[in-house]
Amino acid sequence: MSFDHRKYRPVPVIDKPDRRWPSQRIEKAPLWAAVDLRDGNQALIKPMSVAQKRRFFQMLVELGFKEIEVGFPSASQIDFDFCRALIEEDLVPDDVHIQVLTQAREELIARTFESLKGAKNAVVHIYNATSPTFREQVFNVDREGCKAIAVKAAGWVKEYAAKQPETHWTFQYSPETFSATETDFAVEVIDAVNAVWRPDQGQRVIINLPATVEVSTPNVFADQVETVNDRIQHRDHVIISVHTHDDRGCGVAAAELAVMAGADRVEGTLLGNGERTGNMDLVTAGMNLYSQGIDPQIDFSRMKEIVALVEEITDIQTHPRHPYAGDLVFSAFSGSHQDAIRKCLARYQEGDIWTVAYLPIDPADVGRRYEEVVRINSQSGKGGVAHVLERDFGIDLPRWLQQELAGVVQQDAEQDGGEITSERVHRRFNSDYLSVPMGWTLRSYDLNRNAGPEKGAVQAQISIGDSSQPVTLLSGRGDGAMSALVDALNRRIASDVKVVSFDEYSLGDNTEANAMACIRVQVGGVTQSAVAMASDTTAAALQAILSAVGRVEAASTVARAADA
Amino acid sequence: MSFDHRKYRPVPVIDKPDRRWPSQRIEKAPLWAAVDLRDGNQALIKPMSVAQKRRFFQMLVELGFKEIEVGFPSASQIDFDFCRALIEEDLVPDDVHIQVLTQAREELIARTFESLKGAKNAVVHIYNATSPTFREQVFNVDREGCKAIAVKAAGWVKEYAAKQPETHWTFQYSPETFSATETDFAVEVIDAVNAVWRPDQGQRVIINLPATVEVSTPNVFADQVETVNDRIQHRDHVIISVHTHDDRGCGVAAAELAVMAGADRVEGTLLGNGERTGNMDLVTAGMNLYSQGIDPQIDFSRMKEIVALVEEITDIQTHPRHPYAGDLVFSAFSGSHQDAIRKCLARYQEGDIWTVAYLPIDPADVGRRYEEVVRINSQSGKGGVAHVLERDFGIDLPRWLQQELAGVVQQDAEQDGGEITSERVHRRFNSDYLSVPMGWTLRSYDLNRNAGPEKGAVQAQISIGDSSQPVTLLSGRGDGAMSALVDALNRRIASDVKVVSFDEYSLGDNTEANAMACIRVQVGGVTQSAVAMASDTTAAALQAILSAVGRVEAASTVARAADA
Repeated sequence: MSFDHRKYRPVPVIDKPDRRWPSQRIEKAPLWAAVDLRDGNQALIKPMSVAQKRRFFQMLVELGFKEIEVGFPSASQIDFDFCRALIEEDLVPDDVHIQVLTQAREELIARTFESLKGAKNAVVHIYNATSPTFREQVFNVDREGCKAIAVKAAGWVKEYAAKQPETHWTFQYSPETFSATETDFAVEVIDAVNAVWRPDQGQRVIINLPATVEVSTPNVFADQVETVNDRIQHRDHVIISVHTHDDRGCGVAAAELAVMAGADRVEGTLLGNGERTGNMDLVTAGMNLYSQGIDPQIDFSRMKEIVALVEEITDIQTHPRHPYAGDLVFSAFSGSHQDAIRKCLARYQEGDIWTVAYLPIDPADVGRRYEEVVRINSQSGKGGVAHVLERDFGIDLPRWLQQELAGVVQQDAEQDGGEITSERVHRRFNSDYLSVPMGWTLRSYDLNRNAGPEKGAVQAQISIGDSSQPVTLLSGRGDGAMSALVDALNRRIASDVKVVSFDEYSLGDNTEANAMACIRVQVGGVTQSAVAMASDTTAAALQAILSAVGRVEAASTVARAADA
Repeated sequence: MSFDHRKYRPVPVIDKPDRRWPSQRIEKAPLWAAVDLRDGNQALIKPMSVAQKRRFFQMLVELGFKEIEVGFPSASQIDFDFCRALIEEDLVPDDVHIQVLTQAREELIARTFESLKGAKNAVVHIYNATSPTFREQVFNVDREGCKAIAVKAAGWVKEYAAKQPETHWTFQYSPETFSATETDFAVEVIDAVNAVWRPDQGQRVIINLPATVEVSTPNVFADQVETVNDRIQHRDHVIISVHTHDDRGCGVAAAELAVMAGADRVEGTLLGNGERTGNMDLVTAGMNLYSQGIDPQIDFSRMKEIVALVEEITDIQTHPRHPYAGDLVFSAFSGSHQDAIRKCLARYQEGDIWTVAYLPIDPADVGRRYEEVVRINSQSGKGGVAHVLERDFGIDLPRWLQQELAGVVQQDAEQDGGEITSERVHRRFNSDYLSVPMGWTLRSYDLNRNAGPEKGAVQAQISIGDSSQPVTLLSGRGDGAMSALVDALNRRIASDVKVVSFDEYSLGDNTEANAMACIRVQVGGVTQSAVAMASDTTAAALQAILSAVGRVEAASTVARAADA
């Protein structure tokens, strides 16, 4: 039986009852470092070409990244060539640092400095793995031996940098597998590296703490970072960076809690490409800040371009539920969600603080549209149906009619099982409510209100019938036009016609029809709704009644024919 | 300018300096509730059919889920029919609770109970949204009005349940949008609901705390959950549940920290399907426990079936970097990663505690293979090349030859830009090292060690040449067979032949060739390596030398021809 939890052990945790990070708030963006071109690249089935790296680098610069890890030049000719191209063609803006990774060996460090010749600002990033698994199983060194690797490499970095004084150097050290390393030992190694580099004497130093593999809940990582933050020497002169991966699905959370725990800088990739489960996603982390009113310092409004470029270069499709970027994340199918979104959007005014139900951000901020928010399927209620009719056709329905139409649409959706387009909702609205049954077209009306003893009474002469058919004349009287028509209909069709719901809307000036009437009538025991649009409100109301009654009559004619 | 962080405000947080959750460890699995068939379903473009729901339900039962939300029967005929089918066809095991969601309205609650008639164990789950946005913008109620909705619905649930005493009822209440609700108000509403339901008098009650939309870092959610845990009445009689979404990419983290904060139960979906960015992923949360030595209580060894079913029914592909389930998560492309994995795997024995670099779990546990771990591209070093040769062809190379071959393969990969298959590595190995240059085939050897004054000296008569060619005879002497052959070669080709590296391996009993020799020679200033396999170690060693020298000779012949 291979599925057996007993072959795993929990990672050791630090006892840190004095932790402070859970009470911290993030109030500004950390310094971001994009490692797409290195960590992201090394996890691709087909690594990037120099041309692809150029395009990706250009995008990162345009988005606002100031530290960009561009490759591993001592291990890859492509990466070496790319570094040379960046420098020789002057593609790196003055305020951008290019960063390169190298193993802690002299010949590789030498080659790395060769690749950076002539750079303005560069970060040389060395690492060695410090966790027990690596010390014991991979490198066969004890703690001292492990520390010595780092210290030696730090010395070479310092030595080679001194030979290229035209560059403003930043030195970066990562105790790889930091989160699986005893934190006290990590502090010891970091201090030993800093004793060589002397950040207190002006050398810019980044200490990067990787969760190379995510091995614990994110709070444990935060405790580890806070411990380093509290204990290393020269803390004030050092930039603490974190580099998290997503093996437990919590890479963003770990980075966020680490920032609360004192990290100044966060490494990640756009949309989380990277080894195995990927690196921490810069898009999610940045937009999480943005959605809380914090300037992310990165222009994520170009989300569609980001998604397109990353998909093209990594050959990995963005998941439709990817936070802030996926196709489905600004959608709502459920009726109650659609209803709530609709109400909030109706209130929202440009310039307001955004508080729209179920939408953490305004989709427009990342180049998406409200239009995408609502889709209609069998899980939708009236809210969704109403929303698409209003959005796509400018048709605003009363609540009772929304409910009725939603029921009809839901039956369609349940039969078909799929999504119902707004065109289909509109067609259903037209055929079931707006279309005029044959013979029931209002041709003319003559309303007459006498100032006589029956105060407010209206006499109506109504002529109906389609142009191909003989005209029918109806006469009736009532308190107003509608009741006069109802009276006329009662006289003629000898049924008990009653109006049970009525709403009328102006359609604005830009349409042929200026008014829309929505009506629900009872004819005998049968309830029927109808909608009419007309150039004036009276015509719309009268036509709506005629349409509703005509529908009932047509149905009973069909029923009688079937009986016969 | 629509991209403007100033239209957002940070969510209010609780000041909770006395929090205890960051010091807690998770030591057992929470009670899982799978809401795929409800929350997952309502977020699909094409919702599930009854037939699909049956298959999904069956899988959830088989995996070990004991609480399964099966639908929203008062809102969907399909869900109603599915409930009836589950009950009438007796598809629910005795230890499984089916759960259904309903809005807090009497007619819907009545319909919900109708759908559950005859169930053995059922959870009726009511909710109303409690956050300021919903109170003010969606429902237009104050706190009292909001609370009244919940209390009234709790009453109806109690009333209707009493009429169906054949079912063992659990009542569940969710203050929807809990994480955006003032926590003190949430506690007030929960207490009011419990005052109706009286969990202290034996009614099983679940209080479910949803991050309906994820609005904060996960530690804030944990603070909220711990506050509810500390303050509600009848805590000991209530099951506290959490239901997180992934809008900030931290749904799993939020659930994990919430369990540390006192939650007993976690709702989620397989692979995180659900509204917008999805629900918390049960696979990741469960496997996170597993990887720490905790029994997840769910059989995730059937990962491939889970992925296949979820993909088919949701019509959403699993991201290749999805934790524990994605295609790429047990892959390593980078050379140093491959090297470390290889070393750890070589040490790992069935029954050991799993501590393999870069692999949080044994891929075999979820039906994947070590074979998938290593792929070769331009980012790979010797480790990967060596691994695939050993894995797929049983060829174990010495380190110096691994390095040499890796360099050759890397050039291929850089030229092509894509992945190099293990077949291609093998072809390259054959053509560059194993193939025998024309005319340099060992035909026979006669070795003679005399017990004379030159102790240990060997006299060799070597005949070489392909079958189509004349035989060449070589004679020489040395300390052993190889040095005797080198002596013979030096006499014949008048160059300075030296062996610089040599390793020999037994190939086991099952191959025609029992021995493999790897050799690196210098001929004049030229270094050349070669490999030979043969039925005995001596023949392999001699052939390897001949192949290496032959290669150098062939190359210089070509060079001479080009000069002429």
